[in-house]
This record gives sequence, C-alpha cells and structure tokens, in this order.
Amino acid sequence: MSTSLDSGWFTEVFDSHGSAFSLKVTETLHEVQSPYQHLAVYATETFGNLMVLDGCVMLTDRDNFLYHEMIAHPALFTHADPKRVVIIGGGDCGTLREVLRHPGVDRVTQIDIDEEVTRAAERFFPSLTASNDDPRAELLFADGVKWIEEAADDSVDVLIIDSTDPVGPAEGLFKTDFLRRCHRVLRAGGVLVQQSESPLYHSGSIIRELRRDMGEAGFDSVATLPFPQPVYPSGWWSVTLAGKGADVTSFREAAVVATEMPLEYYTAAAHRGALALPPFMRRLLED
Amino acid sequence: MSTSLDSGWFTEVFDSHGSAFSLKVTETLHEVQSPYQHLAVYATETFGNLMVLDGCVMLTDRDNFLYHEMIAHPALFTHADPKRVVIIGGGDCGTLREVLRHPGVDRVTQIDIDEEVTRAAERFFPSLTASNDDPRAELLFADGVKWIEEAADDSVDVLIIDSTDPVGPAEGLFKTDFLRRCHRVLRAGGVLVQQSESPLYHSGSIIRELRRDMGEAGFDSVATLPFPQPVYPSGWWSVTLAGKGADVTSFREAAVVATEMPLEYYTAAAHRGALALPPFMRRLLED
Repeated sequence: MSTSLDSGWFTEVFDSHGSAFSLKVTETLHEVQSPYQHLAVYATETFGNLMVLDGCVMLTDRDNFLYHEMIAHPALFTHADPKRVVIIGGGDCGTLREVLRHPGVDRVTQIDIDEEVTRAAERFFPSLTASNDDPRAELLFADGVKWIEEAADDSVDVLIIDSTDPVGPAEGLFKTDFLRRCHRVLRAGGVLVQQSESPLYHSGSIIRELRRDMGEAGFDSVATLPFPQPVYPSGWWSVTLAGKGADVTSFREAAVVATEMPLEYYTAAAHRGALALPPFMRRLLED
Repeated sequence: MSTSLDSGWFTEVFDSHGSAFSLKVTETLHEVQSPYQHLAVYATETFGNLMVLDGCVMLTDRDNFLYHEMIAHPALFTHADPKRVVIIGGGDCGTLREVLRHPGVDRVTQIDIDEEVTRAAERFFPSLTASNDDPRAELLFADGVKWIEEAADDSVDVLIIDSTDPVGPAEGLFKTDFLRRCHRVLRAGGVLVQQSESPLYHSGSIIRELRRDMGEAGFDSVATLPFPQPVYPSGWWSVTLAGKGADVTSFREAAVVATEMPLEYYTAAAHRGALALPPFMRRLLED
C-alpha cells in the first residue's frame, strides 16, 4: 500500500494527528546536541537547506518567508507606532530581519535560549542573519521566561513569541503566568504575537486555549491569523495577536499599502483575509 | 536521520518537488483497478476515509471541504446568474453537492469518465453523494473531452474542470484545444474554473501556462485563487477562473454575505483575500 521512503528522506511524524511530512535530503550539513535540544541542518533536493530541532522541521530556505513575514508584519502594522520590540525565541534571526525592515523601530532585543541555533543560521541560512549587524539589534542568549520576569513594567511596544511547539524548551511560553508577565511588560497600546500551530489540527485545542489564556492574562483584544506553511504539520499555520488596549482586529492598512519592503507573501489583502476566520475555525475558537 | 514509516502508512511522494505526505492508515476498505485508473479507499486514524487514485491522494473526510467549496463557490458567485452548470471530472460528487446548494441553478451535469469513483464515493463518502438524487442533477459516465466537443455553442453558464493532475486520464483537460472548446460551449458571461495545483510548486509552471492557454483560448479575464489543502502536495492549492465576457476578478459579494449555505471555509473575505495574490505568485504568474 505505502510507498516506503528510503534513507534519503527526512520525515517528521505528527503522531497525534496521524500524518507525516518528508523532504528529500541530499546531505547532512550539520548536527549538534546543544544543552537544550538536538539541532540538525540538511541540504534538501528542492527546498534548499532545512533546519530541524528535536526532530521537528523549523524552517527551509524555500518557504520560511511565509512564517517570518506573518509573525512579524501583522503585529508591527497593528501597533500604532512600534519603537521597542522584543523577540522571545527566534534564534534563526528571520523574524528579527523582518522587524528591522520597519524604519520606525528604535531597538529590537532577541532572546533565544540556544546560541547554537543562531550560529547554525549564520552558517547555513545567511540571508536570515544578514541584518544582525544593524545597530538597533541586540542578540541575547538567555532564558526568555526569566528575561520577561525581570523586564520593567510598560517598557515594550511589540512582543513576539517566536517559539518551537509547546513541549520541550518552549513549554513555559504557553502558560498563563508567562502571558500575564508579558502583559505587564507591554506599554499601553502594546501588541503580543505568538505562533499558534495549525488551524486544522489545533483550532479546538491549543489555539482556543491560548486565546482564553490571553484573555485571562489581561489582554482585551485577540485575533488569530491563519496562513499557508508547507513544511509545518498540515501545511497550514497560524499566529495569534493580543492587544493591551490595542485593537488587534484592525491595522494600519495605508502604511502596508505604501510600504516598499521586499515582501513575498504579506500584503494588506493577506492581512484582511487572515483576520476573517473561516467559519469552521470561528466555531471551534468561539463556542 | 529519517524516522521510517512502517506499513501502517499511506505515503504519496511528490518526486519532482522532493517532498512526501503520509497518513496513518488503519484499514484498506476498497481497492479496484478500473479501466482508467487504480482506486483505493483507506480508513485513516485521524482524517476519516481517504480516496487514492493511481497513488495520488484525492480526498479525505476531514479536509475535502476546502477544495470542494473553493472549486464551486467562487465560480458560481462570480457568474451573474448561473443556471446551467457542467462539471468535468468530479466523480466523488463533492463539487456537485456544493453547486446544488445554489437555488438559482436549474441543471447540473457531471461527466466523469470513471464510474468506479462515484460508486466508491456512494459507499465510503456518503455525505458527498447525499445530493445526487436532486432532480436538477444529471450524472454521466463518459469522456468529458468528447462531451465538450459535442456540446452546443453558448449552452453553459459555469464549467467546472474538477480533474486529477495533468497526467494520466486528465491530461487532455490541460490543453489549449480543450480550453478553446470550453470557451465555445460557454454562454456570454460564462465562467470556467479549473483546479490548478500548488501555488508554491507550480506558480512558475502549470499555473502560469494554464493562464496563458486560457488567454489563447479566448478568455478575456483570468484569476487564480490559492487556498489551504493539507492533503495535497505542499498543503497549499489553487483554482483558476476564466471569464468569457465576465470579469472574474470581482464577484457578487452581497450574495455571499447573505447566503445561509452551511459553509466551513468559503466566505466573501476568503474570496477577496484569495483574489489578491501574494507578491511572489504575482511575479511568477505575470512576468
């Protein structure tokens, strides 16, 4: 019945969803066990380089533009005037690069627990780390949960949780206590954005719970934006935005239309389209 | 490196794109070699039943709503007043069911070359064939290319090409001659819609060529609409609309907003969002 894949493939099995995704690999470029996770980089036949953390696909050259544009730009174009941005996770630096495209941003701090991710990105995904020398960028290798715990009240405009799945090193980033601290750290009008898994697989579970937790943490507006992401489970992914006195169901459309950023996916129409949830999601999220 | 999948999985390998998608299977429910293709139905662990033609995933219970809504409703809500609809292919009857939700439609003829597909759908996907007794529906098992060749001029409002990939039995449905005949058969104001593969994999090849062929066949307006489809290659799929004196870049938005059809994905916002192509696609399609 099944075509079996030989050893020339990397396969990620999504056990709880009974599906798997595979990419044809031509070479193992890098493999290291960091203090936090297992990291591997493969050359693939058609997706360019592939980074894998603890067996989960993180990104490929070919399609990471979808995720990185959608975790950065909707949040930054929702905030009225973002100057101070913090990224928790995001060690591959692709999100950082997108944030730095916003000329109004004064300072971005990226806090990833695992320096190995950034070192691997510098070697194998140099286009993602190309903006790391920007004087507005600060790269820390530390525990993001602790960093947020110690950060000053009302000090950040946009907080981006660019994490792995809610197991392993990222587990603490999906807890109400952490979201409450994020709320405290954000200025009035601040926007939080978090990657929030698959619309097909997780609307009735992780996404629904995250939205409820955001409400309990004090956020007064919430919006989940779906977008295609071929190499992630189900090929369909989402980010969820939460506002502290900011309405995250609208955004600075004229600024998006006027921007000259070299974007591949994100547009005002994509943002508007994503804000209007498919009926099946609305039902699962809001019932 | 790779987790190998045991025999409990169905895997479709997309050779030219170096990727593969797998579903965990609990039982083989049906297997038949028809005169046209190999057909199999499996019970999966989490996607309900799965139909496979010549090794390619056709549909699952869980996510076929995406494809069926997007191949039917954008075309029907683009046409000013569709009464006569023809479906080439579509033997699983899911598209037929969506078309029949439109009360203004007087008659729908579905022409699929392979009766085994419809028989298998009746047994294993009964919700898709639930509208087959509608007196407005006519099911023919015949060669769609020949049917179009013999159809009267100016006799159809919406023509839906709900085919397999452009290899094997469906090859003739992706040729300019066929499109020219479709144009002839459509009434003025008519709309053609064809499934048009993956935005990520095929924007610079199949989709681009189909749009060019549609232009050469006499269609004066064309629009490609991307949408998520987890079980198809890359998890991202598209339909392409073409108009014969109909502008397929706009649609009857008020009618979509007012509809009470039980839809899971399609909305006016989804239609508008899909019409605004991501910049990377626009570049590949229009350069």
